[in-house]
Amino acid sequence: MARVEQRLKEMGLVLPAALKPPAGRLPIAMARLVGARVFVSGHPPLNPDGTLARPLGKVGGEVSAEQAYHAARLTGLAILGSLQRALGDLDRIAAWARVFGMVNAAPGFNATPDVVNGFSDLVLELFGPEVGVHARSAIGVAELPFDIPVEIEAEVALVA
Amino acid sequence: MARVEQRLKEMGLVLPAALKPPAGRLPIAMARLVGARVFVSGHPPLNPDGTLARPLGKVGGEVSAEQAYHAARLTGLAILGSLQRALGDLDRIAAWARVFGMVNAAPGFNATPDVVNGFSDLVLELFGPEVGVHARSAIGVAELPFDIPVEIEAEVALVA
Amino acid sequence: MARVEQRLKEMGLVLPAALKPPAGRLPIAMARLVGARVFVSGHPPLNPDGTLARPLGKVGGEVSAEQAYHAARLTGLAILGSLQRALGDLDRIAAWARVFGMVNAAPGFNATPDVVNGFSDLVLELFGPEVGVHARSAIGVAELPFDIPVEIEAEVALVA
Repeated sequence: MARVEQRLKEMGLVLPAALKPPAGRLPIAMARLVGARVFVSGHPPLNPDGTLARPLGKVGGEVSAEQAYHAARLTGLAILGSLQRALGDLDRIAAWARVFGMVNAAPGFNATPDVVNGFSDLVLELFGPEVGVHARSAIGVAELPFDIPVEIEAEVALVA
Repeated sequence: MARVEQRLKEMGLVLPAALKPPAGRLPIAMARLVGARVFVSGHPPLNPDGTLARPLGKVGGEVSAEQAYHAARLTGLAILGSLQRALGDLDRIAAWARVFGMVNAAPGFNATPDVVNGFSDLVLELFGPEVGVHARSAIGVAELPFDIPVEIEAEVALVA
Repeated sequence: MARVEQRLKEMGLVLPAALKPPAGRLPIAMARLVGARVFVSGHPPLNPDGTLARPLGKVGGEVSAEQAYHAARLTGLAILGSLQRALGDLDRIAAWARVFGMVNAAPGFNATPDVVNGFSDLVLELFGPEVGVHARSAIGVAELPFDIPVEIEAEVALVA
């Protein structure tokens, strides 16, 4: 069994099914393989069956900072699910390069890095510091699709 | 004649002239070629002469979702114009990698993917699914330059 | 002495120390080296000692457009500091590829390109047009960490 999949199992984590958009069309690839790079679409937090995880809403409003940290962790599992389906094996990832964390911020809520840490902590736990460390921005945006509390996009590099 | 240019002609589409900023300086490259990659600056919807297409304003406010879908399609043509000028031939594009769609959202408007579909649909029509499919985020931002309703940046990979 | 470092000295500019986050954890790399590319995390404007430069707040509100232009220039120096620590020598940079400028915009403030020009002008002065020119977006976001007025992330390519 692959190392990252083994770690997921040890940590009792399950990758969710592919996103089931609650409305509209998404004529995109959730993970786009281009040479030795994978571009990862903005993902929402998901339940195991691919539906949107609750709560929805603005962080610092309906959604607490703690709930948003957990939502960012769930977003990480959703991204790993998309990468798993695109790559077959998560051990093909040589480096997490770029992470862009978007928080659906209530006016005045700017502890956005603490929220996106839910994603970064997961990646570092699973991949270790050498592969897992990444450049990152973590900002508050005006609106996110379906009123999700957090959305994360990323770029990873594959083993040559 | 190149295949994508042929498709544009068949579809009756014309690529607009380069952006004429209505104010200020833009000391940037609208399309930056780096090796076999092109980084595409955030583009606005344009008229054929390179002026900003109307309507301006917030989507879900002064600008309807339908108008914004069309604006995203015009933004696609503006990006193709910049790529054409940078590359000479749009058939040099091997893969659309990453698309980042920013919608000037009125409070509460979160159907942002439906807006940015105007861009994605155009790229898929012109390039087909293998080259045209891309990773994407489609978010609502607080403000966009010149009060444009939508802005899109992208990264494409070139034929080796 | 390297050329860019020489230019900095001639211009009387000093690169600040690494960011000292005023709160929370940042489990990230401020500059992530992946092959011949460097992904640069979103950076704030810094004082020489790595603390956040003042003023904080929203541009078009507590922070004027002129102050924000200067903040974007300081953000550029902060990024160059991170690149210097990651690369050892700024002359290893072959091309500025992508710049993403995020302005903490007060409602109605959309002269965001003028703000981010503070960054682009600095990079062009130091690296010249061939290396320094870049693709860019410059948008207004709802909230930024620590209420900083501007945050910039980037990608650069290294000499092969």
